[in-house]
Amino acid sequence: MTRRPSGGTRAGGADGVRYVADVVVTMDARARVLRPGAVEVNGDRISWVGPASEHGAAEREIVVGGLLMPGLVNAHGHSPMTLFRSAGDGLPLERWLADVIWPREARLRADDVAWGMRLGAAELLRNGVTSTCELYLHPRAVADAALEAGIRCIVAPGVFDLAGAGPEGSWRRLLDEAARLHDELRGHEPVLSVAIGPHAAYTLPEEGLLAVAKVAAELEALVHIHVAETRAEGRLVDARYGCSAPELLARTGVLDCRVLAAHCVWLSESDVDLFQRHDVAVAHCPQSNGKLGSGMAPVDEMLGRGLRVGIGTDGPASNDNLDLWEEMRLAPLLARARRADPGALSTLDALALATRGGADALGVPAGRLAVGALADIIRLDLDDPAFVPALSDEDLLAHLVWAASSRLVTDVWVGGRQVVAGRRCLTVDEEAARHEVALRARRLAGLDTGP
Amino acid sequence: MTRRPSGGTRAGGADGVRYVADVVVTMDARARVLRPGAVEVNGDRISWVGPASEHGAAEREIVVGGLLMPGLVNAHGHSPMTLFRSAGDGLPLERWLADVIWPREARLRADDVAWGMRLGAAELLRNGVTSTCELYLHPRAVADAALEAGIRCIVAPGVFDLAGAGPEGSWRRLLDEAARLHDELRGHEPVLSVAIGPHAAYTLPEEGLLAVAKVAAELEALVHIHVAETRAEGRLVDARYGCSAPELLARTGVLDCRVLAAHCVWLSESDVDLFQRHDVAVAHCPQSNGKLGSGMAPVDEMLGRGLRVGIGTDGPASNDNLDLWEEMRLAPLLARARRADPGALSTLDALALATRGGADALGVPAGRLAVGALADIIRLDLDDPAFVPALSDEDLLAHLVWAASSRLVTDVWVGGRQVVAGRRCLTVDEEAARHEVALRARRLAGLDTGP
Repeated sequence: MTRRPSGGTRAGGADGVRYVADVVVTMDARARVLRPGAVEVNGDRISWVGPASEHGAAEREIVVGGLLMPGLVNAHGHSPMTLFRSAGDGLPLERWLADVIWPREARLRADDVAWGMRLGAAELLRNGVTSTCELYLHPRAVADAALEAGIRCIVAPGVFDLAGAGPEGSWRRLLDEAARLHDELRGHEPVLSVAIGPHAAYTLPEEGLLAVAKVAAELEALVHIHVAETRAEGRLVDARYGCSAPELLARTGVLDCRVLAAHCVWLSESDVDLFQRHDVAVAHCPQSNGKLGSGMAPVDEMLGRGLRVGIGTDGPASNDNLDLWEEMRLAPLLARARRADPGALSTLDALALATRGGADALGVPAGRLAVGALADIIRLDLDDPAFVPALSDEDLLAHLVWAASSRLVTDVWVGGRQVVAGRRCLTVDEEAARHEVALRARRLAGLDTGP
Repeated sequence: MTRRPSGGTRAGGADGVRYVADVVVTMDARARVLRPGAVEVNGDRISWVGPASEHGAAEREIVVGGLLMPGLVNAHGHSPMTLFRSAGDGLPLERWLADVIWPREARLRADDVAWGMRLGAAELLRNGVTSTCELYLHPRAVADAALEAGIRCIVAPGVFDLAGAGPEGSWRRLLDEAARLHDELRGHEPVLSVAIGPHAAYTLPEEGLLAVAKVAAELEALVHIHVAETRAEGRLVDARYGCSAPELLARTGVLDCRVLAAHCVWLSESDVDLFQRHDVAVAHCPQSNGKLGSGMAPVDEMLGRGLRVGIGTDGPASNDNLDLWEEMRLAPLLARARRADPGALSTLDALALATRGGADALGVPAGRLAVGALADIIRLDLDDPAFVPALSDEDLLAHLVWAASSRLVTDVWVGGRQVVAGRRCLTVDEEAARHEVALRARRLAGLDTGP
């Protein structure tokens, strides 16, 4: 089933290409599974999806075989932290940040971040992640590396008081830079857009949150922020402001913007109410929350309350990889284990979290194979035990969530452009990136003075 | 670093072979990491391990590069259930067994089980699992398929009252068969050995448990049994016997045998005391317990009490794959998330659960690269983002547990015999196995009458 006509195998953003696969998992409104199915791409959009027996309008047909599905959406990441992979394992978030991460980040240069992001983007793309939301420092370097790699990216310049920034803090400078970058890179939408990334309610002053709300409203920019990640954060915010982090964000006007809140492990009932009223989207990060011992977010409750929820890898320093397949499996696994109820979060809900849920949380028209959606598509190898026996569509979706993994991703297209072919990333020199990141990581850890 | 001398690349059980790798993770008593290191194999045992700069006694040297570590140990599986992968997703254990699994198992023939086990063994071996403990029906077929595949296996013939077995039950016939098989296959140790597999305290009568204890004691056989998997099981056993499942097992003499108890999600403090007194080993199955909504086993407490603990995949119908790397990551992740404490279970403990802990739980002298241990060895590709930057031995172990995955396993040796090379299983025709399992799964699900 992998006959390839003389037209070749590359899409390269070409207009009017029809991809025929043994299975198409659409994740459209009806979550149709087409066996076999076809997806047609025109420019950067999907122009037609249907059973392979029906015909759309594309001129060129490529039989790719395997399984096509929407690319996965990483709703919260710090991918340049490939530079700090596994650093500080075993520490709780607060000590991990203060003792391990912030001292290293204080030494970061833009070229470090660029190499870290290149490696991260290659890892994400090879794992079938076509969109990622990146909150980090040196955001221009993040943006350039993402554009170069061809991954769809929301860059959220980190805004907070850096360690050692002195009494003046650094948030105002970082916020100004974020606003400038937002304007400069506006032309790259929908491949790349710039959000504002206030780190958290406890890492910049109330004045900073007020300013973030003002700037984001003016720019109509997404605000991406860590919220209620640990119990300690809740205690800290309560001691300082006499309220919860969500309440502080409401009070400072931040929740009047479009907000994507990461983690949300320790939300109270009334915090969830607040999020619901303000249509706040949530990025659930189960692996990071587990590894750092932050806890388990009540993701099933959030979905039950109609919140837009995606899933995120967080950074490779607290995960320690960028494999969204693992997060997709963890979300229902933790929800079911925590409630001792296998109905707590369904397999289809898990698949939605990783695709259209994440896209909706980011406000990107992707995450489904449907007419008009961005042509962010991945192909999986079906010749694997993970897809045996696939007796029904329902079983096949369960195989995808519970048995398949990133190893089966063979090809990836972002906006119709092929960026992974035969499991190789076409846009990043991964060997060079591994080498550079390994070298720079040594310097950043204070082990030597090299590049 | 992958120079291969003229001696060639195959070990094939040859005596006196020295494998030189960029990294050797020993998991020996000191958990030494050798960079670079060498492992020497003589017959089916490891004869020497040390830094590459030191020399042992082997005549032939093969530079394999990459990372060598002990093969992973699956402490609880039902691998032939590849035939039922993902069946009954979303149901709690009791309904999943009664409504979905048992009706299918009633249709099982020995040749179905053989094909299911072949596919399972190929999946396990490719994932770097060199030992597995298999509780299942048609145990002779499981044993033959395991021997054929070259995976080290403890076969625990399932002993319980099959659905529809009538008032007489079926446990006595199954127990007699298990005892016969134990004698017949004794000559295959340590590649294969036969245990007794009473399914659970609630699926055979007290008389059956008494008989199991008697037979196992006579044969000096391991008893492998599901214990305290769900809250419902606890209620059932309490209603029938007025005690917990571990108490019933103590009362019937089962705990006087060598026992490996699977799941152990709902053990009370006094149940753990009982296990400690009887030196009961535990197979922790975090993914299955999560997927079925059974709950989260207190694995950190069990380790703290000195119990021998391994990890298991359970069957692919409740997992839904046979990837022990996922279980290795889930064990600390769930323990840390559940306690909101990143110190709840260390990275080294997780690695031990998947290797020497599992081997000790099974009573197999493997799970470490140490002199005298069975030469069950796997090689991983280090040229991957997962192993960047690996600044220290500690970081490298964290990369192994938190960032690496089964996709990086390239070569596998069981007792010195190479069974996976270049990511391909040499002993199983995987394509044929996928085909047969897919066909037979249809018949077993009642979809058609085919082979």
